[in-house]
Amino acid sequence: MSKIKIGLVGLGRLGMTHATNIATNIPEMDLVAICSLNQDELTTAQALLNVKETYLDYQEMLASPNLDAIVIVSPSGFHCQQIQLALEAGLHVFCEKPIGLSLSEIDQTLALSEKHPEQKLMIGFMRRFDDSYQYAKELVAAGELGELTVIRCYGIDPSSGMESFVKFAADSNSGGIFADMAIHDIDLIRWFSQQEVSRVWALGKNAAYPELDQVNELETGTAMMQLTDQTMALLVTGRNAAHGYHVETEIIGTKGMLRIGAAPEKNLVTLFNEHGVVRPTSQNFPERFGQAFVSEMKAFATCILDDLPTPVSARDGLQATKIATACQTSFETNSIVEIDRSN
Amino acid sequence: MSKIKIGLVGLGRLGMTHATNIATNIPEMDLVAICSLNQDELTTAQALLNVKETYLDYQEMLASPNLDAIVIVSPSGFHCQQIQLALEAGLHVFCEKPIGLSLSEIDQTLALSEKHPEQKLMIGFMRRFDDSYQYAKELVAAGELGELTVIRCYGIDPSSGMESFVKFAADSNSGGIFADMAIHDIDLIRWFSQQEVSRVWALGKNAAYPELDQVNELETGTAMMQLTDQTMALLVTGRNAAHGYHVETEIIGTKGMLRIGAAPEKNLVTLFNEHGVVRPTSQNFPERFGQAFVSEMKAFATCILDDLPTPVSARDGLQATKIATACQTSFETNSIVEIDRSN
Amino acid sequence: MSKIKIGLVGLGRLGMTHATNIATNIPEMDLVAICSLNQDELTTAQALLNVKETYLDYQEMLASPNLDAIVIVSPSGFHCQQIQLALEAGLHVFCEKPIGLSLSEIDQTLALSEKHPEQKLMIGFMRRFDDSYQYAKELVAAGELGELTVIRCYGIDPSSGMESFVKFAADSNSGGIFADMAIHDIDLIRWFSQQEVSRVWALGKNAAYPELDQVNELETGTAMMQLTDQTMALLVTGRNAAHGYHVETEIIGTKGMLRIGAAPEKNLVTLFNEHGVVRPTSQNFPERFGQAFVSEMKAFATCILDDLPTPVSARDGLQATKIATACQTSFETNSIVEIDRSN
Amino acid sequence: MSKIKIGLVGLGRLGMTHATNIATNIPEMDLVAICSLNQDELTTAQALLNVKETYLDYQEMLASPNLDAIVIVSPSGFHCQQIQLALEAGLHVFCEKPIGLSLSEIDQTLALSEKHPEQKLMIGFMRRFDDSYQYAKELVAAGELGELTVIRCYGIDPSSGMESFVKFAADSNSGGIFADMAIHDIDLIRWFSQQEVSRVWALGKNAAYPELDQVNELETGTAMMQLTDQTMALLVTGRNAAHGYHVETEIIGTKGMLRIGAAPEKNLVTLFNEHGVVRPTSQNFPERFGQAFVSEMKAFATCILDDLPTPVSARDGLQATKIATACQTSFETNSIVEIDRSN
Repeated sequence: MSKIKIGLVGLGRLGMTHATNIATNIPEMDLVAICSLNQDELTTAQALLNVKETYLDYQEMLASPNLDAIVIVSPSGFHCQQIQLALEAGLHVFCEKPIGLSLSEIDQTLALSEKHPEQKLMIGFMRRFDDSYQYAKELVAAGELGELTVIRCYGIDPSSGMESFVKFAADSNSGGIFADMAIHDIDLIRWFSQQEVSRVWALGKNAAYPELDQVNELETGTAMMQLTDQTMALLVTGRNAAHGYHVETEIIGTKGMLRIGAAPEKNLVTLFNEHGVVRPTSQNFPERFGQAFVSEMKAFATCILDDLPTPVSARDGLQATKIATACQTSFETNSIVEIDRSN
Repeated sequence: MSKIKIGLVGLGRLGMTHATNIATNIPEMDLVAICSLNQDELTTAQALLNVKETYLDYQEMLASPNLDAIVIVSPSGFHCQQIQLALEAGLHVFCEKPIGLSLSEIDQTLALSEKHPEQKLMIGFMRRFDDSYQYAKELVAAGELGELTVIRCYGIDPSSGMESFVKFAADSNSGGIFADMAIHDIDLIRWFSQQEVSRVWALGKNAAYPELDQVNELETGTAMMQLTDQTMALLVTGRNAAHGYHVETEIIGTKGMLRIGAAPEKNLVTLFNEHGVVRPTSQNFPERFGQAFVSEMKAFATCILDDLPTPVSARDGLQATKIATACQTSFETNSIVEIDRSN
Repeated sequence: MSKIKIGLVGLGRLGMTHATNIATNIPEMDLVAICSLNQDELTTAQALLNVKETYLDYQEMLASPNLDAIVIVSPSGFHCQQIQLALEAGLHVFCEKPIGLSLSEIDQTLALSEKHPEQKLMIGFMRRFDDSYQYAKELVAAGELGELTVIRCYGIDPSSGMESFVKFAADSNSGGIFADMAIHDIDLIRWFSQQEVSRVWALGKNAAYPELDQVNELETGTAMMQLTDQTMALLVTGRNAAHGYHVETEIIGTKGMLRIGAAPEKNLVTLFNEHGVVRPTSQNFPERFGQAFVSEMKAFATCILDDLPTPVSARDGLQATKIATACQTSFETNSIVEIDRSN
Repeated sequence: MSKIKIGLVGLGRLGMTHATNIATNIPEMDLVAICSLNQDELTTAQALLNVKETYLDYQEMLASPNLDAIVIVSPSGFHCQQIQLALEAGLHVFCEKPIGLSLSEIDQTLALSEKHPEQKLMIGFMRRFDDSYQYAKELVAAGELGELTVIRCYGIDPSSGMESFVKFAADSNSGGIFADMAIHDIDLIRWFSQQEVSRVWALGKNAAYPELDQVNELETGTAMMQLTDQTMALLVTGRNAAHGYHVETEIIGTKGMLRIGAAPEKNLVTLFNEHGVVRPTSQNFPERFGQAFVSEMKAFATCILDDLPTPVSARDGLQATKIATACQTSFETNSIVEIDRSN
């Protein structure tokens, strides 16, 4: 059984994480080709990871006869088109979240994917593959918490990134905090509850950087959701956590509750110093989710090798984007928004 | 300086807590009279606490020439009338939460209170007097968290009380979980934010005891609120915590965040046993808030002795009830409800 | 049943703690008389606590006809003599730890106490009365930990006191860190294990303040002890904890272990700030053991009123001093010291 | 630069951990050969890990022309001889702890190693490579804790292994708990303090399994050590932790303290259930130290590839064994034992 030959597009921070994992930590995969608009990135990554083929053009990479699968880590606006092209080229696809920005484009992508059932399409909601999240999911599935009643999800980026975000937001559009950041939490709500979201109300406040009001971006947002079985979901999404990278999920059920990352502990060290009793914290997503990114890619490999359904489907990508879009609309209109459940 | 002579009405579990504190832990007060419809309760309490006067009738107690102040711990439906009668009798009043069940009755009570500015009227939101809440309030006031953006409040009673609540709910009305329980959390939101609530959306789910649907009661509810300065508040209220009495408050600001009671630790003991590393938990409100009930009563004494405004005013009582009522309406109509801010 | 009339000697920080508790928190006691060599202390305390009688001379206080019991909070060197005088005056005695500095004096005191069995003599090891310690003791007694194998005790004062200690040590003698501080931990070892100590090896190191070597004092010491049933005890005693007042006790048994005060949490607040996830800490003994000092004094009252044996006996005081003395000798000789068990 | 070709001896639980890591997680290494006395183990491992050469005889493996380095994971009694043979065959060596059981044999091994300075010899104290230990070491090295005064090390295996240990101990000799288990903690004491141990007193107690007294084995042991700069070390070693695999290290210094693994948390999940607030725990060394075993082997690869000194030297192995031996002697004689520092 030979290795899965991978072509990867996008060599930003997350792109390099995936590229490095594929090249060194996933024995089932070979990183054969990389693609970027930036020649410097290509040169650096090729040298570091010993990659054979480099491309400045995505379609040229697709034309390489040496590939089995494409890993897409490009900007979100390219996702749908790149997925479609890869599917048409007969390749398996792993695409980072979100699957796309426009619902109609995502619908087209799903339709195309359904025409190629033998080709795998997996979306990168890596939190599902984190050991702590896996452990929690098993407890929930085993009924340890009874029937679920409330899910609470926090995803707050560290304050250290605020200034660069404010600059970025001055002339770019993140898509809004719900689509850009909360989409991970939205996926977790669906994954843990095995329910869809019926309606949502979202709020936001810019306090440290009120200038974000001008560009319709948020420093901090919240949302409350009602799921199809009446389960309630609470969400906090933010860009301004003084203490680090705060990703926390709580599941409340009739028999107990659990929290993942209640304190975003960096490791097993506790300090006792002039500040009190201190647990150092995770500072960014590569640190917090390093293991999850590897496990996620291994899962993609397994799907291909064993011809299994992907654990995060294109439909998961579509639903998360729908809900995130509804949150954004709700925030902008300060009203409850129903989620379209027509498909 | 002589002691404040107290008459107390209501000798249930919380009534006895207050009576015992006044009789033994508040040197500034004398428990002179007690009133209950139940002669056995009167006899027991008189013997235990060495109280001179006992009454089966509230108005008879008010007629006693030996009283300075009344402490009301009777069922909520009596609060407004008993406050009014005590004010008319020229006495200071401490009344347990809620100040009343009907907004019009509360309005009347406020109006009467304003006619007697020299008589103190204080409402029993004891959490404000808990050492941990005081500590948090000082940090917030000192600006340690920066400007506030999100407040999250949990108040969940232990599962051990569910069965008796289900029986009670079969033929009584608690007033709804938001007025009955979440009112403490609503008060904390106002107290920490120093803002009013503008609008609210509330949800609920009965999972372990679906029969509560029939009597319009809730096992678990959530609410999201928008405050006047755009601060966001999230609330979970429940009656079914497997691990004990879970009262937790989180304050998120631009410079940091804090949690009070993130784990409702019973004491400083940690167990390492076959279940893992275990912190035992508080099991009920007298255990969790024993110190707060004493400090609250001391604060009431200080207001009287030093002629200071009460730290929890009748207006605080009114506003909390308004918001709780709005939550209940929101839950029943599954719509956003605006808070009337006309007075 | 009339109140126990108390005369208290010693109005330093701990003296005032006891005096205030007796005057305001122990309904079974009346603080009738206070004694100090310092007239200012007497004047202040009398005004604050509304005490009838003040004395500059201890024996004059003993001659007052208005007393039932004496509470001794004077410097350790006076304890034995003051206990003896009070016993001879027919009074009950509560004496702060240590019962005395010299073993022969303590022996005399015990002998005298045994001649007056109807007069209570209790030693102030307050930690036993702390709610967390009581909770742990009940678990141990109920066999939750199985048979005990290891006890670990830490008692470390905050660094904030180091400079004044170094000055004090330049021309005074604390009695050595084991008698001065570790004696509380030694008492806990005996109390939890219900065993005596057979032999001990103690070490010490002065790192931040090497000048303490010159005056035979220690910044930090450790000891290991073998108990009569082979249970092992480990002890750290120190004066230089950067994070606050660290009193921690661990009990390891065949079925589980527990820790009291593993993190010396100040309250239920957790901060999330630029330092990480932070639990603020207790800063001193009055803060940490406020409740224990009250409960201890209530226990003394109960012993007198109900004619019960005191929960901390003079023999407990003697044994703890013996072991502390052995630790000091062991440290000075860097050798294992056997504990004399002749009486 | 070609891969380091590895021959590995010993395919027990830890042997398979190393073999799997080398085959799949260390891109710089190739697992070329495996050796075991057990043909079934060889067959299984060969199939699973795709290994070319298998050997029932260690010397035959050494004769293979395809090897650069040997990884020794055989029983401790074989270590010294196997190291020596590998060195004589011109190969680099990684050997699991302990380097050997007999001090004279270790001395010979060191002497031989010094004759082959170009061949690396590294000992497997993997804890040093754990991310949390690395983080702590950096803090200590940066002076964050000031000068060290006390080091406390716990290493307690889960109770689940007791019964099989008792059976094993009936007719085998573990070498004693200090050499068998505490040796990891002894290495940490040396590593963190950068000091040698001067003298030690060790104790032990068999409570749950008193039959271990008959075979001179221990369920639980403690030791106190004095280091060359007066730093004090406390050690608890055991085989009977009800809650799991408890490896904890504490470093106390003049400016602060830290703990690694104060609660042996399994992951970032906290449960709130009928037992209280619960952190699940690590249950065994592969779970706790999975990352450390990989990092350790990567470090060995780096030493070979970059011709660097090994981070855990043969002398580290010798010193740890000396101290463990002294602990055992101290326990058996109930006396303080000086550590021979002649070489």
